[in-house]
Amino acid sequence: PDHFFLIAGPCVVEGASLLDEVASRVSAVCKRLEIPYIFKASYRKANRTSASSFTGIGDIEALTMLKAVSEKYKLPTVSDIHSAPEAAMAAGYVDMLQIPAFLCRQTELLEAAAKTGKVVNVKKGQFLSGASMKFAVEKIKAAGNDQVLLTERGTTFGYQDLVVDYRNIPVMQQTGVPVVMDCTHSLQQPNQTTGVTGGNPQMIETIAKAAIAAGANGLFIETHPNPAVAKSDGANMLQLDLLEPLLEKLLRIRKAIL
Amino acid sequence: PDHFFLIAGPCVVEGASLLDEVASRVSAVCKRLEIPYIFKASYRKANRTSASSFTGIGDIEALTMLKAVSEKYKLPTVSDIHSAPEAAMAAGYVDMLQIPAFLCRQTELLEAAAKTGKVVNVKKGQFLSGASMKFAVEKIKAAGNDQVLLTERGTTFGYQDLVVDYRNIPVMQQTGVPVVMDCTHSLQQPNQTTGVTGGNPQMIETIAKAAIAAGANGLFIETHPNPAVAKSDGANMLQLDLLEPLLEKLLRIRKAIL
Amino acid sequence: PDHFFLIAGPCVVEGASLLDEVASRVSAVCKRLEIPYIFKASYRKANRTSASSFTGIGDIEALTMLKAVSEKYKLPTVSDIHSAPEAAMAAGYVDMLQIPAFLCRQTELLEAAAKTGKVVNVKKGQFLSGASMKFAVEKIKAAGNDQVLLTERGTTFGYQDLVVDYRNIPVMQQTGVPVVMDCTHSLQQPNQTTGVTGGNPQMIETIAKAAIAAGANGLFIETHPNPAVAKSDGANMLQLDLLEPLLEKLLRIRKAIL
Amino acid sequence: PDHFFLIAGPCVVEGASLLDEVASRVSAVCKRLEIPYIFKASYRKANRTSASSFTGIGDIEALTMLKAVSEKYKLPTVSDIHSAPEAAMAAGYVDMLQIPAFLCRQTELLEAAAKTGKVVNVKKGQFLSGASMKFAVEKIKAAGNDQVLLTERGTTFGYQDLVVDYRNIPVMQQTGVPVVMDCTHSLQQPNQTTGVTGGNPQMIETIAKAAIAAGANGLFIETHPNPAVAKSDGANMLQLDLLEPLLEKLLRIRKAIL
Repeated sequence: PDHFFLIAGPCVVEGASLLDEVASRVSAVCKRLEIPYIFKASYRKANRTSASSFTGIGDIEALTMLKAVSEKYKLPTVSDIHSAPEAAMAAGYVDMLQIPAFLCRQTELLEAAAKTGKVVNVKKGQFLSGASMKFAVEKIKAAGNDQVLLTERGTTFGYQDLVVDYRNIPVMQQTGVPVVMDCTHSLQQPNQTTGVTGGNPQMIETIAKAAIAAGANGLFIETHPNPAVAKSDGANMLQLDLLEPLLEKLLRIRKAIL
Repeated sequence: PDHFFLIAGPCVVEGASLLDEVASRVSAVCKRLEIPYIFKASYRKANRTSASSFTGIGDIEALTMLKAVSEKYKLPTVSDIHSAPEAAMAAGYVDMLQIPAFLCRQTELLEAAAKTGKVVNVKKGQFLSGASMKFAVEKIKAAGNDQVLLTERGTTFGYQDLVVDYRNIPVMQQTGVPVVMDCTHSLQQPNQTTGVTGGNPQMIETIAKAAIAAGANGLFIETHPNPAVAKSDGANMLQLDLLEPLLEKLLRIRKAIL
Repeated sequence: PDHFFLIAGPCVVEGASLLDEVASRVSAVCKRLEIPYIFKASYRKANRTSASSFTGIGDIEALTMLKAVSEKYKLPTVSDIHSAPEAAMAAGYVDMLQIPAFLCRQTELLEAAAKTGKVVNVKKGQFLSGASMKFAVEKIKAAGNDQVLLTERGTTFGYQDLVVDYRNIPVMQQTGVPVVMDCTHSLQQPNQTTGVTGGNPQMIETIAKAAIAAGANGLFIETHPNPAVAKSDGANMLQLDLLEPLLEKLLRIRKAIL
Repeated sequence: PDHFFLIAGPCVVEGASLLDEVASRVSAVCKRLEIPYIFKASYRKANRTSASSFTGIGDIEALTMLKAVSEKYKLPTVSDIHSAPEAAMAAGYVDMLQIPAFLCRQTELLEAAAKTGKVVNVKKGQFLSGASMKFAVEKIKAAGNDQVLLTERGTTFGYQDLVVDYRNIPVMQQTGVPVVMDCTHSLQQPNQTTGVTGGNPQMIETIAKAAIAAGANGLFIETHPNPAVAKSDGANMLQLDLLEPLLEKLLRIRKAIL
């Protein structure tokens, strides 16, 4: 496959107009650049640091909006699930189920996701090695589903920082599944005293370039027309205007390594 | 309170006779030493590294055995829960609900545990600072439950090791809740290539002594008559015979710091 | 040996009156508490973060002041050395030579220190395991000197924090030499953007209590009558007034573990 | 500058014929690929884990061989120094002085290197952030030398692993000096119980590709005709035959990012 694929969107479903704006603009860019595009938005955020943070507009409302985007723009979609019963629910609306990093060891959740027959994207826990992710792949395959992705999103590095270990890209590829670099959450600065996770968005380009050079099959980038007003992860989202020039640079690197 | 309390038991409910043996022996020791004792066993292991590892004998069977132990030996009991619906189920059988470290950020799970009115023991994620655990306490209190414990169980330190940061004991105590040191899981050696978590049981005494000296309110120690045949966490469990002399040493340190 | 020993003093030789004040007060406290006391001050700081930080008043002047303190108060003394030729120079004035943590792998420096016949205290590098310090002990013994101490002073934990791994106390004791906990530098917060290392002095008591409980043979504590005006490491020094009550608490723990 | 530069050679000067073979072959490759090439070999290894490891054939003998290689192949050369007096000595033979990572905070060593007027390459300590390396640059510039390089070589990540943080490349470039990725030592597996540092040479290509994509100005690669018999760092050296195809791949990435 000549191109990397892109999983991108606005973190959480805030409302229909935001979804439409992001899907419209990103799908146009990706069409022009011939990058396979999967639209991403969470229908709910279940593990915010603080209970007072925004968690969503309602699961079914959000999933319905995701399905509408999918149909309007002919895009596959992905959303996170957080418990086994959510797998079947979400599978009625989206094409790919994503397992959050904190939950990547929950066997029942992996199996429930697997049994929907949808593609399952498992994010590497901040506490796990790339090599250990083979056990997540095995759990999903043993449940009868071969469509698995693994996503690198950084590893605990002291309390208030994450570090991306690029060795994990080839290591996780040894399981035989595509590997995605999550350029957004890899840059989180967790455990801030404010209860709001910090970030470092000026590093998105460095993280993404190194990932493509190291052979990542796909990229995950949260993007928003105005990250400063986003209801979740604003500290690390890429401003939508910056996505196209970034992808153009990354395509040049991709071609150089093929 | 003059004494530290002890949460101890055989990791997972393997069968009735094991529970009885451990409860009988540990409760006798703790009665003699005047150490408040909470009997611990998981009715299910939901996040084993590998899908082929033992996960339990059946939830209700295991919980029923826990309740029988509780009644026979007049002991409070604790078990892990892994999803919101499990909270109410387990609360029918045990006195304390434990939130596994990987799940300590799952708001819905914390809230479901809180709403049972049982004591909730939240283990610090390997990816979280002690300071961040105040948000877990706040989530539980906001759900109407003031009976919270926090447990230190080590922090990610490279891929294949955990390190205990004793600063977390006073830091977590600043939330106003008792703090427990988990002497068993703190010594895990995760991410082994075999898929079986390793350990370092000869360090249990060092971990426990430092915890009591640093002011821990309670200790969590998994113990088994024969750790070599235990079905989970055998690499770090304390042999049952060694518990009494260890507790005697720890009580001397406890008295020295009061 | 029933007592732990204490290495304490004001970080760097700022002038004769400071040395005298600290030596006088600490030696009186230690005499009363029967704690063997080694007076510590560096005659020079060779590895300050920033070139503009204070490094010393002159080597020979500082060493002469150390010798005067030693004679007046009948105290053994210790100071850091930073290159092989300094070993013989410093050995003319002090009783123990300390190898800074950054330099603990420099074979020539260890050998030069060893050959003076003085006691050599090697601080564990922030990048080394406790187990690896056996090679430092072997280098010194191979150079003909059996009088070695090893000191734990924390390990790199992300960029801006150190963590003390108490497993290193028994691990380093397996080499057969006494192990010291450095309660001051273990609490450094390195890599601050200001170029001045930060600290966390309210944690000194926790670090020290856990160390004694874990079996440390000695403690290293920098102390100053007024840490806020100290010319080096002020962020972590213990105020001199607080030393005596801390030592009393620690002696109770020491007695509890014997 | 269109090309990255290469610092490469056989770790330590083992003898004249090895130097000649490596210089001959690498200089031919670099000439063909138009890659500026600096020949590297240490005249002495001063910080081996174990005192029984090979440290060198004699300083002056080794430096003389380096100078002969330089003249024969018209190559600039670089070697490590370990103490201030070595700076002037080595400057008589080589064109660039390298400061080992463990020693990057030793002010006197940095200043002595600076004062020779030679280019100074400072390796980032395993315990330092990229941001903190600005203080090393400042120390050298304050001593009157503007010719500085900084080299990333991995950061402590648990005891037995290092991780490369690619954010350090742009961060260190903010000091205005070129930044080199050391693809050899970044892959060390330190603190092995054997006393011999381990490695992971199959990851050299991943480390190097990500570095070029992230904008590194130069690469550092130790290479040997037969790493299995090398007297130092054999676990991570690139086999000489593999250098040319690797450089060709890297040049394609370099062109893609310009």
